[in-house]
Amino acid sequence: MLSKARIKFIKSLQLKKYRKQEQCFVVQGEKSVLETLQSHFHVQQILATPDFMERNQKVLSHYKGEVLLVTGNELASLGEYASNDAALAIVTIPANEFRKPITGFALMLDDIRDPGNLGTIIRTADWYGIHTILASEETADVFNHKVIQSSMGSFTRVNVFYTNLVEYLTTNKLPVYGTFLNGENVHELSFGDEGIIVIGNEANGISSAVEKFVTKRITIPAFGKAESLNAAIATAVVLDNLRRR
Amino acid sequence: MLSKARIKFIKSLQLKKYRKQEQCFVVQGEKSVLETLQSHFHVQQILATPDFMERNQKVLSHYKGEVLLVTGNELASLGEYASNDAALAIVTIPANEFRKPITGFALMLDDIRDPGNLGTIIRTADWYGIHTILASEETADVFNHKVIQSSMGSFTRVNVFYTNLVEYLTTNKLPVYGTFLNGENVHELSFGDEGIIVIGNEANGISSAVEKFVTKRITIPAFGKAESLNAAIATAVVLDNLRRR
Repeated sequence: MLSKARIKFIKSLQLKKYRKQEQCFVVQGEKSVLETLQSHFHVQQILATPDFMERNQKVLSHYKGEVLLVTGNELASLGEYASNDAALAIVTIPANEFRKPITGFALMLDDIRDPGNLGTIIRTADWYGIHTILASEETADVFNHKVIQSSMGSFTRVNVFYTNLVEYLTTNKLPVYGTFLNGENVHELSFGDEGIIVIGNEANGISSAVEKFVTKRITIPAFGKAESLNAAIATAVVLDNLRRR
Repeated sequence: MLSKARIKFIKSLQLKKYRKQEQCFVVQGEKSVLETLQSHFHVQQILATPDFMERNQKVLSHYKGEVLLVTGNELASLGEYASNDAALAIVTIPANEFRKPITGFALMLDDIRDPGNLGTIIRTADWYGIHTILASEETADVFNHKVIQSSMGSFTRVNVFYTNLVEYLTTNKLPVYGTFLNGENVHELSFGDEGIIVIGNEANGISSAVEKFVTKRITIPAFGKAESLNAAIATAVVLDNLRRR
């Protein structure tokens, strides 16, 4: 049975303050826990049901950390992680070391505040083979459990680096693409082999400080009356156009 | 000052049971309330701050319903509607009357459960000029406030009809497109002038009962290792490919 102290510790990791203090975060759900175990991330501890252990003996045979056996109800008692009834992992936060230079394409997130949007952007980047995301310091925390959940395991393959975007752009030499209402039609654009795709804040778009560095203004053509697209949707449409031959 | 009874009534509309009983739903936030006032929806009542009334005299001059003046704090006290500090509207739920036949393209949602996904799909459909969505009876309720909020006003221009999808498809004569892992590359496909695009459930994809009616299996090509795309993201990519010339 889980101790009150352990429950309290795991719940505390819903807050960035405690994740930073403890340098770890939570991954929940069978699929995501298995992907994390098979990734470069260091798993400190697993809370798992006997069924999960039984089903996944092969993956778990390589795991050397602690395993705490729990019931599905105990996992459900962990509050916001309630949809999970198989496993939960406590994982070490890796160093935020950005290994320059960018090769190919990278995303740049100019203040994406919604955790669900960030997770969906990470999942979409993974689908389209984008491995590097540069995020402003105000962007949602990648280790927030809602981000981890909506990334569906893709956080293990896409690196999110937090940095001062303007400082970074000052020394950048790659083309910088940004979506605006008055840019070149993304259906007609020929993307080169490398560049940075800037995605703006949900409410305010790309900030004027970052806009100064945009070398190519692009537009997703509209066929109806919506004023804008969700940030993750715009990311997907740009990446789909970028990858098509 | 808002009465306790009114606060209770508005909060009750967060639940589908009470929306069905009262035949009304809530729209919150300045932009969405203004769009609703200028749409075919019937607004029964507005709760608005004096600032909102002042800023939007022109739109409001056509409004004949009740206006309750409130403070920003009172709006914030309405619980889940807390990000709103300008206005809130009580709106009549229109009849769920599907006017056949479909002309051009329509979306079909085979059990989209997440309200945020449904709202984002509605917003994306509006952007791409799709005005009709056929939704399974298990799909999230379009009048859920999270759907209304993430649709960003597009619910006023896109009609969502709930129906038994299999019954509908039995008499349908239009091409039916569905996304699968083993279909024709959507980048190479030539869409015709009309058809139904089926979007599957977040976890299980398109159900086998609906799959039987799919006449064209399509695939969004992957360039990385994510196993799937979010349902709203897949919708956007298919629609962007459908609309490009």
